[in-house]
Amino acid sequence: MENASAPKPHVVILGGGFGGLEAAKKLSCEPVRVTVVDRTNYHLFQPLLYQVATAALSPADIASPLRGILSECKNMEVIMSEVVAVDVDLRKIRMADGVLGYDYLIVATGARHSYFGHPEWEKLAPGLKSLEDAVEIRRRILMAYEYAERISDQAARRAAMTFVVIGGGPTGVEMAGAIAEIARYTLAKDFRHIDPSETRVILIEGSPHVLAAFPTDLQESARKQLVDLGVETRTGIHVTNITEDGVQVGDEFIPCRVKIWAAGNTASFVGKSLGAPVDKVGRVLVNNDLTIPNHPEVQVIGDLANFPHQTGQPLPGVSPVAMQQGRHAARNILAMIDGRKPQRFWYLDKGSMATIGRNKAVADLRLVHFSGLPAWMAWLFVHIIFLVGFRNRLAVLFQWGWNYLTFNKGARLITRNFQAEQRPPT
Amino acid sequence: MENASAPKPHVVILGGGFGGLEAAKKLSCEPVRVTVVDRTNYHLFQPLLYQVATAALSPADIASPLRGILSECKNMEVIMSEVVAVDVDLRKIRMADGVLGYDYLIVATGARHSYFGHPEWEKLAPGLKSLEDAVEIRRRILMAYEYAERISDQAARRAAMTFVVIGGGPTGVEMAGAIAEIARYTLAKDFRHIDPSETRVILIEGSPHVLAAFPTDLQESARKQLVDLGVETRTGIHVTNITEDGVQVGDEFIPCRVKIWAAGNTASFVGKSLGAPVDKVGRVLVNNDLTIPNHPEVQVIGDLANFPHQTGQPLPGVSPVAMQQGRHAARNILAMIDGRKPQRFWYLDKGSMATIGRNKAVADLRLVHFSGLPAWMAWLFVHIIFLVGFRNRLAVLFQWGWNYLTFNKGARLITRNFQAEQRPPT
Repeated sequence: MENASAPKPHVVILGGGFGGLEAAKKLSCEPVRVTVVDRTNYHLFQPLLYQVATAALSPADIASPLRGILSECKNMEVIMSEVVAVDVDLRKIRMADGVLGYDYLIVATGARHSYFGHPEWEKLAPGLKSLEDAVEIRRRILMAYEYAERISDQAARRAAMTFVVIGGGPTGVEMAGAIAEIARYTLAKDFRHIDPSETRVILIEGSPHVLAAFPTDLQESARKQLVDLGVETRTGIHVTNITEDGVQVGDEFIPCRVKIWAAGNTASFVGKSLGAPVDKVGRVLVNNDLTIPNHPEVQVIGDLANFPHQTGQPLPGVSPVAMQQGRHAARNILAMIDGRKPQRFWYLDKGSMATIGRNKAVADLRLVHFSGLPAWMAWLFVHIIFLVGFRNRLAVLFQWGWNYLTFNKGARLITRNFQAEQRPPT
Repeated sequence: MENASAPKPHVVILGGGFGGLEAAKKLSCEPVRVTVVDRTNYHLFQPLLYQVATAALSPADIASPLRGILSECKNMEVIMSEVVAVDVDLRKIRMADGVLGYDYLIVATGARHSYFGHPEWEKLAPGLKSLEDAVEIRRRILMAYEYAERISDQAARRAAMTFVVIGGGPTGVEMAGAIAEIARYTLAKDFRHIDPSETRVILIEGSPHVLAAFPTDLQESARKQLVDLGVETRTGIHVTNITEDGVQVGDEFIPCRVKIWAAGNTASFVGKSLGAPVDKVGRVLVNNDLTIPNHPEVQVIGDLANFPHQTGQPLPGVSPVAMQQGRHAARNILAMIDGRKPQRFWYLDKGSMATIGRNKAVADLRLVHFSGLPAWMAWLFVHIIFLVGFRNRLAVLFQWGWNYLTFNKGARLITRNFQAEQRPPT
């Protein structure tokens, strides 16, 4: 890994998500040597993952090979490996298959699902963080209909056609809306013994409103748009148990075959190995310049960072925060190499959006709030613009145009996956 | 599964490949009740499977949900299940999860790989029949480069960058050409410690020439086009052993990490359960009207059928044979329902083609032989035309146009699969 001809400072970036990738791009062709480490070989556009899970897009539409994105400048190297821990005193990173030194480090390994002390729920109610998760959820949704088509027992059929989404944030709302749309439009004519429009989609949220981070008027608008699609929303109530047969919510047991987890996150375990203080969900408490105490050469960004210096609250785990922090961290490193100090980070909040279904969305642009068609158009526009890779943009535009015009989803393939299913196929 | 209001004859079609799907389409909206049974929920356009394995296309581009294709007519039902055996005397099909009766049966369950008595080779050298196979081979090819990039041992690196394709029929030739092209163009700038253009691709064929079923001039042309791409072709020589470390060919042991099997086929085991005579590779010896002896209500078509009545030789296991037989079998059933006899099948051979790479192909249209660019254009045209589904045609055209213009392949994603790898990732 050592390059004798280059005494340039070595920057290591852990994670090729939104934050890590922006930092890497900012350091491209600069007088540093950069190594990006990621467990996959691609950058994943996570905001559209639910569309892979609901058969609207294919994995390759929303993932772009990291080597391809970063091939232009020779100062950039990509390693596909799993990070185990960081030793900030020795400035060494331990990976599953080797050790890597650094002069400057950006840690952007993000977050995973948290099952609130119930790790046994993970297999029963998979979450949506990776391509593998999305393909597995797609398989479960489609297999539920295959199963329902072939059984005569009414209760079992009803349970197979009941989908419970746990967590009413943007991901949960998007999943619930997308499943309701598949049932109503895409699968309408596919079966002979069931009517897919009898599908029940139940969205469960522990706080009093869905989209808790949005303004009140948009929460109410989102609720109405979900009702329009036939999604049953239950708020202010918690899931207390999950079994193969269903979900316990308060006093009620909802029999259902497919459950999807969109509730909690926990930060990557890499954060804890840095030796800096972490919060309850494992996020690293960073200084106001994104560095960690006593180690200005180490910065933490994105979902792994708890940055409370601007509003008193941690900044939300969304891609604009990660991207702005990624660029800032890169600038900080170039400044330190020049003998200057790292600068304070300020987040510029341009607003947030969530989509619910065809022509249905909410958009909070701070000064104005949209919902319905205008919000949906804004959502489409922003997501196409930020999708990495011109090919992906064209491919997704084509798919969306096709899906919109035909109500049809071409990617509804049931393929086997690395996770064995909990029960046999039928 | 029984429908009391429909005393129409019940036709069951086993297999939703080229033959089964054509038969089903022909029986759509006819006065019969049709049930198509397939182990997957999609029709797979197998001739383009090698493009998924080499990251040019995505699974959804070449697979189309069977329910979607066959949703138009209410007389058509699809069951996703695995067929275990057929009892032709009781007219019952045993599936993994149920029993199905029939009045008329079309068996189109195709073929699997044959490892010539070495089933232990299957995990070492996967073949290319299913989407899962293709995604697994794609993963192995891309992981080989990730591995090569990170080891310093020259011999191990060389073995990781050596790809052996066993079998010089159309699939083997297409795979070998596509890997050589990825190495030369797509990955050219992706790595820092290896030069992908140093990749070796070795194509091994037991008979004296690649593309044994093609005319001699096209065999020679294919060999030259492979040489142009840097593929080493070894003919008239057999693989005698496969290990994790390489392939034994005659006296030579070729160290290599990735081996791909494109050599032999064996017919689906469903054929044997019919009680009719089968040939050495398990194909059912059908009458000249596609029925089996003593059971005019049972027809066998496609790769599972041995039909020697036209040329003295079994018809080849290619999609045009399967499609023509599928349509013929459907016509036979409608004739029998009308009290007429099944008719003799005649195969109309329009020629065959194989592609080797960019602007490289051979086409045997019987009266004329093409190679190079004209053959490649003809190959593209025919494959776009026959691809099922308008969406797929547009999506593949877009991908091919993009790949052609940019030399880039967007689907080069390493995703985990149901088959565990033989050795750890690095």
